Formats: sequence, structure tokens, C-alpha cells
Amino acid sequence: MRHKASTDFDTLASAPSRAVSPPSALDRWMLSLIQRGFGTAPVGFALWDGTQTSPPREPAVGRLLVKDRPTLVGLILDPEMNFGDAYSSGRLEVLGDLPSMLEHTYRAWEQEGRDGQAARRFSLRRPNTLRRARENIHHHYDLGNDFYSLWLDEQMLYTCAYFPTPDASLERAQVAKMDHVCRKLRLRPGDKVVEAGCGWGALALHMARNYGAQVKAFNISTEQIRYGREKARAEGLDGRVEFIEDDYRTIQGKFDVFVSVGMLEHVGKERYGALRAVIERCLPADGGRGLLHFIGRDRQRPLNAWARRRIFPGAYPPTLREVLESILEPGGLSVLDVENLRLHYARTLAHWLSRFEGAVEQVRGRFGETFVRAWRLYLAGSQAAFATGWMQLFQVVFARTADNDVAWTRDHLYVDGA
Amino acid sequence: MRHKASTDFDTLASAPSRAVSPPSALDRWMLSLIQRGFGTAPVGFALWDGTQTSPPREPAVGRLLVKDRPTLVGLILDPEMNFGDAYSSGRLEVLGDLPSMLEHTYRAWEQEGRDGQAARRFSLRRPNTLRRARENIHHHYDLGNDFYSLWLDEQMLYTCAYFPTPDASLERAQVAKMDHVCRKLRLRPGDKVVEAGCGWGALALHMARNYGAQVKAFNISTEQIRYGREKARAEGLDGRVEFIEDDYRTIQGKFDVFVSVGMLEHVGKERYGALRAVIERCLPADGGRGLLHFIGRDRQRPLNAWARRRIFPGAYPPTLREVLESILEPGGLSVLDVENLRLHYARTLAHWLSRFEGAVEQVRGRFGETFVRAWRLYLAGSQAAFATGWMQLFQVVFARTADNDVAWTRDHLYVDGA
Repeated sequence: MRHKASTDFDTLASAPSRAVSPPSALDRWMLSLIQRGFGTAPVGFALWDGTQTSPPREPAVGRLLVKDRPTLVGLILDPEMNFGDAYSSGRLEVLGDLPSMLEHTYRAWEQEGRDGQAARRFSLRRPNTLRRARENIHHHYDLGNDFYSLWLDEQMLYTCAYFPTPDASLERAQVAKMDHVCRKLRLRPGDKVVEAGCGWGALALHMARNYGAQVKAFNISTEQIRYGREKARAEGLDGRVEFIEDDYRTIQGKFDVFVSVGMLEHVGKERYGALRAVIERCLPADGGRGLLHFIGRDRQRPLNAWARRRIFPGAYPPTLREVLESILEPGGLSVLDVENLRLHYARTLAHWLSRFEGAVEQVRGRFGETFVRAWRLYLAGSQAAFATGWMQLFQVVFARTADNDVAWTRDHLYVDGA
Repeated sequence: MRHKASTDFDTLASAPSRAVSPPSALDRWMLSLIQRGFGTAPVGFALWDGTQTSPPREPAVGRLLVKDRPTLVGLILDPEMNFGDAYSSGRLEVLGDLPSMLEHTYRAWEQEGRDGQAARRFSLRRPNTLRRARENIHHHYDLGNDFYSLWLDEQMLYTCAYFPTPDASLERAQVAKMDHVCRKLRLRPGDKVVEAGCGWGALALHMARNYGAQVKAFNISTEQIRYGREKARAEGLDGRVEFIEDDYRTIQGKFDVFVSVGMLEHVGKERYGALRAVIERCLPADGGRGLLHFIGRDRQRPLNAWARRRIFPGAYPPTLREVLESILEPGGLSVLDVENLRLHYARTLAHWLSRFEGAVEQVRGRFGETFVRAWRLYLAGSQAAFATGWMQLFQVVFARTADNDVAWTRDHLYVDGA
């Protein structure tokens, strides 16, 4: 039985391939338009009969084979959406290495100063109400823990790792990320911590187990919360970690520490005020420590339309400026430390993609070929986006503006026992 | 002979004290207005006959004695400007410890969420044209190298130091600051560096001497440039450090590294585009490293009107958001690292104030009592501003968005030889 969340992809796969006649002059003209639309990206195109176009600068690192006329028309009408769908359904084929082709494309577009304007047409977004937030998160995160366990690390962390050296293992890098976050928060035994968006609970458990913290961890994904609770019970940590299946906006109570890793990009700009209100009310009036870890941008751009529709409904990676403007400044909070880890995310994604390919038969058996191709495109595309600066990964440490109980230097992040 | 830059203060000092009659009901009413205007600050007031008012919350940490009626009226009409002038001229006396009183006042105002609105009236600023920039900088920095050498460290650094531990000496902390900056920039032998706003040249010389860099250092203060050049010659570094008496906007040529320590706060918001253009054109199109070290804010506020008029004409400490909005984002630059060192600046200022007091007889002899009091107020007020979060000190490391030749982690800042 296939998982219900894959329904979108099944529909795509069943679209019939109707083009059998040789390309017309119109088809060739459309192809040249598409080639031009790719700008300086070193990617060529081909039609179903072998007709080819080339990028402005040779050599091309790959070629995209358009297999039928509806696909060609689709790439003209809505390139961002239909590129992903056509690739997923197999009506668009990549001749060459997908991650490398995507990376070269993003790099060329970044140098052109392309700002995602084409995507603006599709950027009408609905705010994430409590119900829609739940649907959005369910869409992605409730594909089944079994699916994610095929290609995530053993502790099931689905956020950017921190590689002490580039060749560190993914397992080690995810543990290092948790320690990096805990050190940035100067976590101490007995600290009361609230975590907004806890995934499968690895960080919450790590904070309790390794730092003696008392954690309340919020998440609206049913499957993830269930997984976290089982882990906590199995480890005897259920007295120190409480997993709560609810939206971050319902957080009540007072805590020493607020932490959120990989949630802000799902919050949506319209709700930053709500997140700010949570931070303001849950930290002590004159103190507290906080950290936001999120996928961001250097300049405002909507998330790629296809990724937003098929992979991450409701997602928006903000700029650092937007986070300052809507959360930290009006919240009376001061930036203590910002670190950009985008190359660590590119590496994390390379690990995930490699593990995904290693388990591709199992994924295909469960979700079908279209799903496999869609996820391959999503993982490779994300890797390319971080590798080229198209997307950033920010860790922001903050405190109340007037609070002097802050780290004197950042030595303690790097020197053990300092 | 008194230095010409002290003219303003001499005028203040010569203002006659006209109030001799006992305070009227009107005077007492004005006093209560002033007391109320201080909000929750734990500071009381007194009139020349001993009449007192108290802050809403006792105990007061200090009391301000208003010595005559014109001063009282001045504090009603334009408190921000006249507080500083009245204190400088001795027509307002502080009963209690000045730095502590200022710190408590800033802290109370920060908690009230006071946003400097009162100061907006006086925030009409003229953009810093090349000529005005020169006048502004001359006003402050050309008081004479002898004056600054009385209370700065031996290398004459007039920017926030970096104290490895809070009890480090000022000398050590200024060297540590330069090393911290050089490490953040990953300075390597042969690097071509441009420094915008180089003060007396200590950092430029340090980069050449200790890191083998080739430095062009810009400054519009005649006295500072002369001092730097002499130092370079004396050390035999004049082949590797070129001191240029000119505005940062005239910088031409290509460099590996752009660095600016303590200049951005003098640039003025209207000129951030010009600074951005300099950074964009002087770094390689696909690379380069950069660092901005500047006094900033958590929220937009004009600089205190008195400090802007008497101490730092043309100055404006920006928020991190403003720097992102006007310099980094439109410049195609990516934030790699932000560190907030405001408590290090509070400590730096405490050292400066203490050394200033140690040399106060010499300062008084040269510039007069009004100048002494004005500078005491400025140093103590700045210390209080940093100690309370009223002002911030940001170091921002940046690179071109698509540049992957960036530090993998920040270990190299903390682990020697890494």
C-alpha cells in the first residue's frame, strides 16, 4: 500500500505522454525560449527527436531532455512548477549528474543576480493558521518514520549538521550540532528549556541526557511526537522531557531557555509576530537565553514554487533582516552571535542524498518512481542551493537587550571545559 | 593656549549664573516636570536652595543639583542637549557617582522601552559630504595626539577592545582585538588589505607586522595620518603600510580584504550606499573577505543630541538591520559571523575613564574645566550605554554570497595554530 501523502506524485506519474509527432517549428521556438530562460546556466536542452539547443557558454554540464509537447508547453507556462513535476514524472530527463547540474545552474543564476522574480507570480501564500500549519507539517513529516530512518542519521535529525571537519561522519556531525547549540545556549543542569518544533526529539533528549535540562518540546507532527515519546520512555528520560503534540503558539509557562531548530522556515512571515510573542512571554522579563536555527536567505526570495507545493507547503526562508525586523527588534532582544553554516547544510544534504540513493529500492517499492524522482530533485536541489549561496543556514543567539548575564567570549564553544 | 576645538566648551563655561532669588512655585513645578521626565530612573533632583524631588522608586543612586533658573528652564526646553551642556559648564552638579547614576538611568529607560523619541526633535541631520565629513572628524580626532595619548593604550586604539578575560589589561585587550579581527579575516602573508578609517594606524601596522599583509589605510584626520606615517617609518613598515589622508569614498583599486573598525558610526545613514559601492568595487568580483566593526543599536534611535553636537558631529550608530538593508543585502554580500561585544566596550570605556581621571590635571590645564566635565560625561555616558544595552558593538564578517572560500568553522579564532 502506498502512503497517502504520495497522492500528488501518483497523479503526476499517470499523466499520459501524448507527443509522438516530430517537433514542429513552434516546438523548436519554444525550446529556444526555454533555453534563453535558463540564462547563463551551463545546461543544454533536447527534444524527443534529438533536436538540441546549447547554453550561451560551453561546455554544458548537463542536458535536459524534454520528452513530449505538453511538457514543453508546461515549461513555458510555469517553468518553476513544471520543471519539478516533469522531472518527477519522468517526462523530463536529466542527461548528466543532477546535483552538479543544479549547482551550476544556481551558481550562474546567483551571479546573474537573478532574484526569483519569475517565482513571484506563484508567491500568493495563505497564512499558516493552526489548522493549515498542521496540514502542511503532516504533508511532509508524516510520510512515516520508516521512510526517514532509511536515510537520516541514527538519531533522526532532519536539520543541518555541524561537521567539526568536512570529513566527519553524519552521525558525529549531528551530535556536534546538538552540542554546538547547547553550548551556545550555555545549558546548565536544571535549566528549564522550551523547544519549538522538536522533530523526532533528538535535541530535546540530548539536552536532558547530556546537560541535565528539563525540556518541554513542541511539535505538531503526530508521528514524530510518538517517536520522541517512545525514545524518552526507553531511555528513562520521560521525567525530564515532555513531548507535547501542539503548535508553538500554544506554548505557556516560564523557561530559562527558548530554542528552535529548523522550525522558523515553516512559520511563515505572517506569523513572526506570534512567534515573537511566544519568546517574549516564555522567557523571564529580565533574562533568559535563546537560539533560532533556520534556513534563510541573503535577499528576499520566495521558496521555489515547486518545492513549496510538493515538498514544503507553507515554507518561507527569511532573510536575517526580516528576522531582526519582525522578531528580535520588536521583541526587545539583542543579537549576541550569528553563525552562517550553509556549507555544512550542503554537506548534510550530500550525505542524505547518498543514503537516499542507497535505499532507493525500498523507497520505490513503498512510494513509487515519481516519489523517488521528486525527492531526489528536492535533496539535490537543496544541496545545490546551499552550496551556491542561494540559501543560507543561520544560527542566531539572542538575549534580552539589557541582560548582562551573557557569555563573555565565545571560547566556551571551542575550548572544552572552558 | 587652549585648543581651538574646545571653543564650544569655553562659551558654555562663560555663561553667567543669574539665579540668586529663592525658587518660586513655578521653579518647583518645573523641577517636578523634569523629575517626571526622568521616568523610573532612580535619580532625584534638587534646586539651588535645597528643594528636593525624588524618583518614583527609592533609593535614588544620585541627585542632580540644578544651580540656577536658566539651567532649570533649559532642562525643560531641551533636556537632552542642555543636560550635557549644563553638566559641562558646572551649572548642573551630580551628587553621587556619575557613571553609576548614568548606568541606572539608561537601565531604567531601557526597561521602560524608552525609544529616544524625545531626541527625534533634534535629529534633523545633514548628510556627511566630503567637506563636512572632514570637519566632523577634525572636530573630534584632531584635539591633538597628546590629548589622546594621556588616556588611550600605548598603541592609541580608540575603538572597543577585546578582553580575553574581564581582568585583562587594556593594552593586552587592544592587541587581542586586533588579532581577533585579523583571524576573523583569515589574514595571510601577501594579502592586500584596504582599511577604511584607520585611526592612528595601529591595526594597519599590526596587520603588516604580524600577518605580512600589504595595507592601504584611509583616514581624513590629518593628525592621525601623520602619527601613523611616523610609526610606520620608525618600524620600517612604510613599504607595507600606506597611510592615505583621504575619504573612504575615494578608495580605488582591488584588494583581498576590506576592513573597517569604528568608522561606520561616523558614515551616516545617507552614505551607506557609497560605502557599499566602495566594498563592491574594491573586492574581487567572485571573492574577498570583509569585516565591519561598529557601534550599533538594537532598535533605531538617534544618537543622544548632546553627544552628536558636542562630541561626535555627524555620528549615527545603526541597527544590524540597517546595515543588512543598506550595505550587505544590496551589495550581494552574505553574513558569515556576527559577534556582539558591547560588554567589552563598557570595560574599555571604564579603562579610558579611569585613565582620563588620572590625567585630569593635564587635560584641565590644556582645555579647561568645561572640557574636562564634557569629556567625563561623554566617557561615563558611553560606558553606561554599553553596560545597559542602550548601545551595542557589532563585528560583522561577510563575503560574497556565492563564495565558498570561507572558514569551515570558527575554531581558528580560538584554537592557536588551527
